[in-house]
Amino acid sequence: MNLPSSQPVGTPPGSYRQLPEGDSAHFVISLMHYNHKTLEEQNDVPIEECFNYLAKEGVTWINITGQHDLAVMEKLSKVFGLHPLLLEDIASAGERPKIDAFADQIFIILRLLDFDKDKREVRDHQVSIILGKNFVISFFHKESGVIEPIKERIRSSNTRIRTLGSDYLTYALIDTIVDRYFVIIKNVDDKLDNLEEELMHNASKKTLQKIQRVKREMAILRRAVWPTREVVSQFMRTESPLVKKDAHFYIRDVYDHTIQAIEAIEGFRDIAGGMLEIYLSTISQRLNEVMKVLTVVATVFAPITFLTGVYGMNFAFMPGINHPWGFFGAALAMLCVSGSMLIYFRVKRWI
Amino acid sequence: MNLPSSQPVGTPPGSYRQLPEGDSAHFVISLMHYNHKTLEEQNDVPIEECFNYLAKEGVTWINITGQHDLAVMEKLSKVFGLHPLLLEDIASAGERPKIDAFADQIFIILRLLDFDKDKREVRDHQVSIILGKNFVISFFHKESGVIEPIKERIRSSNTRIRTLGSDYLTYALIDTIVDRYFVIIKNVDDKLDNLEEELMHNASKKTLQKIQRVKREMAILRRAVWPTREVVSQFMRTESPLVKKDAHFYIRDVYDHTIQAIEAIEGFRDIAGGMLEIYLSTISQRLNEVMKVLTVVATVFAPITFLTGVYGMNFAFMPGINHPWGFFGAALAMLCVSGSMLIYFRVKRWI
Amino acid sequence: MNLPSSQPVGTPPGSYRQLPEGDSAHFVISLMHYNHKTLEEQNDVPIEECFNYLAKEGVTWINITGQHDLAVMEKLSKVFGLHPLLLEDIASAGERPKIDAFADQIFIILRLLDFDKDKREVRDHQVSIILGKNFVISFFHKESGVIEPIKERIRSSNTRIRTLGSDYLTYALIDTIVDRYFVIIKNVDDKLDNLEEELMHNASKKTLQKIQRVKREMAILRRAVWPTREVVSQFMRTESPLVKKDAHFYIRDVYDHTIQAIEAIEGFRDIAGGMLEIYLSTISQRLNEVMKVLTVVATVFAPITFLTGVYGMNFAFMPGINHPWGFFGAALAMLCVSGSMLIYFRVKRWI
Amino acid sequence: MNLPSSQPVGTPPGSYRQLPEGDSAHFVISLMHYNHKTLEEQNDVPIEECFNYLAKEGVTWINITGQHDLAVMEKLSKVFGLHPLLLEDIASAGERPKIDAFADQIFIILRLLDFDKDKREVRDHQVSIILGKNFVISFFHKESGVIEPIKERIRSSNTRIRTLGSDYLTYALIDTIVDRYFVIIKNVDDKLDNLEEELMHNASKKTLQKIQRVKREMAILRRAVWPTREVVSQFMRTESPLVKKDAHFYIRDVYDHTIQAIEAIEGFRDIAGGMLEIYLSTISQRLNEVMKVLTVVATVFAPITFLTGVYGMNFAFMPGINHPWGFFGAALAMLCVSGSMLIYFRVKRWI
Amino acid sequence: MNLPSSQPVGTPPGSYRQLPEGDSAHFVISLMHYNHKTLEEQNDVPIEECFNYLAKEGVTWINITGQHDLAVMEKLSKVFGLHPLLLEDIASAGERPKIDAFADQIFIILRLLDFDKDKREVRDHQVSIILGKNFVISFFHKESGVIEPIKERIRSSNTRIRTLGSDYLTYALIDTIVDRYFVIIKNVDDKLDNLEEELMHNASKKTLQKIQRVKREMAILRRAVWPTREVVSQFMRTESPLVKKDAHFYIRDVYDHTIQAIEAIEGFRDIAGGMLEIYLSTISQRLNEVMKVLTVVATVFAPITFLTGVYGMNFAFMPGINHPWGFFGAALAMLCVSGSMLIYFRVKRWI
Repeated sequence: MNLPSSQPVGTPPGSYRQLPEGDSAHFVISLMHYNHKTLEEQNDVPIEECFNYLAKEGVTWINITGQHDLAVMEKLSKVFGLHPLLLEDIASAGERPKIDAFADQIFIILRLLDFDKDKREVRDHQVSIILGKNFVISFFHKESGVIEPIKERIRSSNTRIRTLGSDYLTYALIDTIVDRYFVIIKNVDDKLDNLEEELMHNASKKTLQKIQRVKREMAILRRAVWPTREVVSQFMRTESPLVKKDAHFYIRDVYDHTIQAIEAIEGFRDIAGGMLEIYLSTISQRLNEVMKVLTVVATVFAPITFLTGVYGMNFAFMPGINHPWGFFGAALAMLCVSGSMLIYFRVKRWI
Repeated sequence: MNLPSSQPVGTPPGSYRQLPEGDSAHFVISLMHYNHKTLEEQNDVPIEECFNYLAKEGVTWINITGQHDLAVMEKLSKVFGLHPLLLEDIASAGERPKIDAFADQIFIILRLLDFDKDKREVRDHQVSIILGKNFVISFFHKESGVIEPIKERIRSSNTRIRTLGSDYLTYALIDTIVDRYFVIIKNVDDKLDNLEEELMHNASKKTLQKIQRVKREMAILRRAVWPTREVVSQFMRTESPLVKKDAHFYIRDVYDHTIQAIEAIEGFRDIAGGMLEIYLSTISQRLNEVMKVLTVVATVFAPITFLTGVYGMNFAFMPGINHPWGFFGAALAMLCVSGSMLIYFRVKRWI
Repeated sequence: MNLPSSQPVGTPPGSYRQLPEGDSAHFVISLMHYNHKTLEEQNDVPIEECFNYLAKEGVTWINITGQHDLAVMEKLSKVFGLHPLLLEDIASAGERPKIDAFADQIFIILRLLDFDKDKREVRDHQVSIILGKNFVISFFHKESGVIEPIKERIRSSNTRIRTLGSDYLTYALIDTIVDRYFVIIKNVDDKLDNLEEELMHNASKKTLQKIQRVKREMAILRRAVWPTREVVSQFMRTESPLVKKDAHFYIRDVYDHTIQAIEAIEGFRDIAGGMLEIYLSTISQRLNEVMKVLTVVATVFAPITFLTGVYGMNFAFMPGINHPWGFFGAALAMLCVSGSMLIYFRVKRWI
Repeated sequence: MNLPSSQPVGTPPGSYRQLPEGDSAHFVISLMHYNHKTLEEQNDVPIEECFNYLAKEGVTWINITGQHDLAVMEKLSKVFGLHPLLLEDIASAGERPKIDAFADQIFIILRLLDFDKDKREVRDHQVSIILGKNFVISFFHKESGVIEPIKERIRSSNTRIRTLGSDYLTYALIDTIVDRYFVIIKNVDDKLDNLEEELMHNASKKTLQKIQRVKREMAILRRAVWPTREVVSQFMRTESPLVKKDAHFYIRDVYDHTIQAIEAIEGFRDIAGGMLEIYLSTISQRLNEVMKVLTVVATVFAPITFLTGVYGMNFAFMPGINHPWGFFGAALAMLCVSGSMLIYFRVKRWI
Repeated sequence: MNLPSSQPVGTPPGSYRQLPEGDSAHFVISLMHYNHKTLEEQNDVPIEECFNYLAKEGVTWINITGQHDLAVMEKLSKVFGLHPLLLEDIASAGERPKIDAFADQIFIILRLLDFDKDKREVRDHQVSIILGKNFVISFFHKESGVIEPIKERIRSSNTRIRTLGSDYLTYALIDTIVDRYFVIIKNVDDKLDNLEEELMHNASKKTLQKIQRVKREMAILRRAVWPTREVVSQFMRTESPLVKKDAHFYIRDVYDHTIQAIEAIEGFRDIAGGMLEIYLSTISQRLNEVMKVLTVVATVFAPITFLTGVYGMNFAFMPGINHPWGFFGAALAMLCVSGSMLIYFRVKRWI
């Protein structure tokens, strides 16, 4: 779980949190500056250089990947006049998706879902976006390649993104993050299908563990998607001049997608909710079958074992005991008894 | 599941999606132009010809069946000034029902439910409707015969549809699609009835699978009907001049039907939700019966088999062992024991 | 289930539906015209005659029982200027409760619940009410005697109903229909009590079936009562001049009753929801008891049968085999073993 | 259940209901008239006498205990101009908590919960309060001693209640009734704790019945408390001049208490909801233990009984049959087999 | 449970409650007076001394730890003009979180959660805060060290808290209390993880008890956190001049944290809700395994014991009885039968 309390209780708000150990502080700044005519692209630039582009005409996109770097943060803060709590939110790893509209900036936090192929787990990273009049600053906590296609579209000279402003770029970033949800949703959907199959045919304790694991993934999805809907809805309804009229239509489209994601996830909950009961049914069903085997065996052998007991008694006088066909008669009787038992169970469809 | 992410993450919004393979791109345009006096009908016309009717008095209904055709789409877009995202929505197969009201057009997406008789599955297709001042363009992804009755009504010269405008035609289309839901709902209702019967009398693993299958159908229904309610409600409350006052009353009627559909589906959920528990009860009940058989058998034979054991012992001196009636006395004792056991179980109503 | 789709998909809205077969079309019109002084009452009158009363001072109540009659409907429609969709709603049997307020008429649909004593089922019929300035037209699909007390009150000369207008009569009709719900609720309450008793003491498969049947009745109740609340609430808040100020207070009272009905039904859901689990518990409990019997029998006889086996072996030398008291010693040993077993189980309270 | 339909369907609204048999109509009127200086108290006064106090300065509190008395009701109605439906509501025993604000009176119905010590049941009685400018009339259906402390406070000369108006007295009555809820809530809380203990340690069929009984008590609580919140909330927000500004703060406090009561009850539902499942688990757990005993017994004796059978065969030549130590060898073998079985089960922690 | 009814029903509201026995009335007042330049700190001061600071410039923070002290309360009440009900709320231990905004004071009640390490339980204490123009009075019912870090920040001369007003101090107190929730949430999260592990691998009755205990902790959390959200939300939206514009941003941050806390708790409910079902599955699974052992044992020994019975019969003529290899032939037959049984069960994966 991502909790905001990695700090000890009582630390002053707005103070930078410690970097969790083991995460090396690689911190890469890339920059794209474009308008419908020109394009400049730079990777791994110092932050000061980025500021020069702000005065030029066109959109400046500063993308910062990695954990926070104290010095850079403070420079950013000075240039853009960011509130200390905003800086804390950006540096934090567990913030809830939210949107804050200021007079000249819109600040958005989202959660990017990723499928960690090694650990076979869904992981979520924080993405922070600052939308200004002619710039967008995006913070990705982990390099994830998710923004490559957007860069590609900017590089092509006659795409829509080149002719539109910073609000459209922000939309494109949100759209990309929301599209990612559907990759995870598709994955969960497949897993649920497999689990259902498994439940019906060879359910075991492992199935139970898998169900629990999928449920946890769904919880991560829910925690990411529900507040995203709220964020996108507010972004759609914002009256800030930073978001132009014609962008609303695009944002509306992302909004519809978040709704679709939510509907899918809620549908999953229903399905996953019923799985434990199916598992229980399956176990009971198997118990039934085990018990049928036991009952059949006991019922077939109990009477004939009894019969052997009868002629095993040591009474001096027993009917047929000395008759030459006595043994075979007894054997025949046993055969009849056990045979009729088996026929009876066959009719009851137990065997 | 219908997800909007058939595109790779990051493709620019508004770009046409690839046609899924295996679906041949048959694309048929039919046209009806009518007013209360005249009627013209054409099948399989080129799109350009349709545009000629727009200038004439009366309602023009262009119905396009099949997957998208790039060229046609672009012509439509040019003539009607459609937004690229709208085109994408029409071309997409998995959009959620929605309504967009523009100044001179209302754009509606709905989902048509169909019962695929071969696969015995519910399937849903997307239907897009563009309502203009004197025209309606409808896009059906699959030929389904569902609009035949509307065409028939238009062909009859003195029907209400002939005297009313494009808003009434749109209403008629929505009404037809919503009426279809009830065919599926009826089908699900019947299935649930059968399943309940089956659960009570001969539940098996297959019943469980059938329950799961019905649940999935209900999920499809839910995903189609709930947003439809929202769409119809917005269509009813729209203040667009495209929808005349007297159409509101009709739309209200469709709205009532979507509410009824939702109530029916939610009722199904309750019923289906209890089914797994009934199944579990039934299995437990059966286990009970199996165990009763086992217990009766064990309890009847245990004491008499013990008795045979007693007289099977090889002690030199055993009472009655040499008595001529010893054997028959023992047999009688066994008969009494097992008989009284049987009576006991009869009294307890186990057998 | 009452679905609005008894028509084939695509039939034009506003067309009269076919009468379901087996329901003979008896169609009886009764009339009461009253003011605080005079009263006229007629049964089985032709519809034309009714219209004459409309011009007179006082309230005219036209009550129509039975399925729709095409000719009468059209006359009604002409005289009162009813919308074709209204006529369809009246003629339909499965409409959801609703209210439509027009300038000079208020149109109400409710569902009357009835307990069919032969089939031992709850059934619901549609009731339509048209409230005009000085008249009320009510349509009952089945004769049910429910309005007899209202007629009786009108016949008494000094009752409140005689001094008040058509809005009060409408209120009286709604009140009567809502009061009926409590008869059914009482019935369901009793059934649930009985079922709970049955569950505890002699649950069987039949109990399960009864639970399911009660659940279905509750679903019918819910489908009738929930929208009724909405209808009454809108009727209470209507600003139509047809409903006078002092009627609001009465309607508020009916509204409280619908709320009470809803609370009762929701309470039932909770109780019924837990019943399947109790049933499951009961079956498990019984299985426990069956298994205890089996275990006791097996545990008592296993050791002593083993002992008989020991002395049934044919070794040439066995201790005590030739001793005169050998047999009795063995018997004593067996008695001790089985006796101590029984005491043990008695202590564990299994027997 | 308290239903409003103790009357036959169709009785005119506003008519007095029949007194349920067995409830003797004791009907006691007590009166307190006070201001910050003087206090007059009378018990068992005729209603006419009460009216004399209304003209005097100060607050007049008329408390009426018992079922309705037709004559008194009509006098009240005449003096205070009560609506016939109000009278019916007061006389009824099963009304839902509600508030009606008129120009010069506020009418409140609440439900007083009581713990009937003989039947060990929660019972609820109706309390009706009429708040006027300088009087309060309260109707308690049963004598319950709940208002004694309020009377005591009035009797003390320097309490707040003496200096404040009729609105404060009404508040005090509501506060007392809401405080009573917490007595019942405490009782239910204790019962649930005990039940949980019982479930864990010696669950039986009786536990199940107790759970059901507590659930019913919770349903009564819910039905009383939820609408009370609504009543208190409306009383708090009323703009009637009958409720002075400074009373709002007190009413707000009662409101907080009703919220707390609701939270407690909803918390109980969660706990009680899980209990059936715990019960089921406990039964299954026990079944497990029974089966383990059976399995251990069967598994220990099956092989050694088989061994006795082997040497019980009558073959002429069997190895060791004539050896002097044959019997002891066989016995030793049996001991080893059964001993190792027991060790095995010990290791598996079954015994 | 914390109920507001520790008083006997009917005690006048606003009266001081009795101190619960066993809680010694240690009552410590500490004071901090600061502005951006100076700082005065005093511990264990008499209340009168505190009042002197109110006239000076800067923020005065009076922190009162311990149960209420009648004399002090009355002095406070006189100086600050507190409403008697407020005093009662402060003195009470079980009030629900709430906020009351007056003209010159804002009164806040929150619940501080604490983990009692001895009893290994979550406990909650009431915290009351009064925010005035230049002072904050906080009441903690138990000494808990939670405010130490805030004091530390005030002691440092160049922290933000020193430059901001009483509203920021209030924010800091709320922030600290909300941060505490995450400590408990983290603890519950860990417990749930452990329980899930335990459920899968060695579930026992104790696990069930632990689940119930965690559920109770979650209920305490819920009761604390849900209304806290409401309080913080109202504090954020208040238009009182006591809360300055720039404080809103900080409060918004606390608000986000309460939302996160709520989401975490609701997520826990889902997980905990499924645990009982997993437990049930696990027990059933084990029963299955027990029964398999029983069935295997019974099935392996039943036929061979029967065979020994056959040759234990005392017929004079039995085939092979006198053959020297008879015994070994029989033994071989038994070996084959039991061996093939074992292979069969191996194939079915029962052993």
